Amino acid sequence: MLEIMQKIVENAPGSKGVILMGFDGIAVEQYVRPEFADAMDIESMAMEFSFRFLELRDAAGSLEMGAITDITLKAQYGTVVVRVLSKEYFVAMVLGDASNMGKSRWLLRSNAQALSADLFAVT
Amino acid sequence: MLEIMQKIVENAPGSKGVILMGFDGIAVEQYVRPEFADAMDIESMAMEFSFRFLELRDAAGSLEMGAITDITLKAQYGTVVVRVLSKEYFVAMVLGDASNMGKSRWLLRSNAQALSADLFAVT
Repeated sequence: MLEIMQKIVENAPGSKGVILMGFDGIAVEQYVRPEFADAMDIESMAMEFSFRFLELRDAAGSLEMGAITDITLKAQYGTVVVRVLSKEYFVAMVLGDASNMGKSRWLLRSNAQALSADLFAVT
Repeated sequence: MLEIMQKIVENAPGSKGVILMGFDGIAVEQYVRPEFADAMDIESMAMEFSFRFLELRDAAGSLEMGAITDITLKAQYGTVVVRVLSKEYFVAMVLGDASNMGKSRWLLRSNAQALSADLFAVT
């Protein structure tokens, strides 16, 4: 799982790190580029959002939009790209700027199945 | 304001409608394609999300990400593209599918200033 996450970050220009977390705010695994490891607490960041994502998911459900698969947040000083893996888990990538948002979203999407397979593998 | 919103929808393939709303859930203006006007209550939909957007905005602020400018939600049966206009207002477009998400986001962004000008014009 960590290898996949490291590869995702290394292939996404402008990305700082990626985290796989439960909607309950408990992190499973994370990879942060070494140069950002001191400055960025990706776990606290994802925790702060996890409960809000849960609420968005419930709102979408009640609006008959079906399950939310992707969430993107673009802010002045950072962008968060989220792929929902299951009812319990999501993977979130933090970018320094939004210029590679599309590639980042695609990387999360194309690796979602491999991450899920690792996540739900009976070990 | 309505003319701008109608033009945004007509130029965004796959879009169903657009709404300009306060984060308090009170709609200012909306335009829904005539063929979706009966089936879709864009106001209730945006209201359902407005409070969650507010919470995301506050979370981003507390994480020193600065102000959120764009939010995208992709679900199984619909996509919502949001552009924040000010501390009080956002404009949200509902799409039937996500294939034209990029163009929709660009249309909202490039019209944000004109919408804001209408919104804050002293009449």
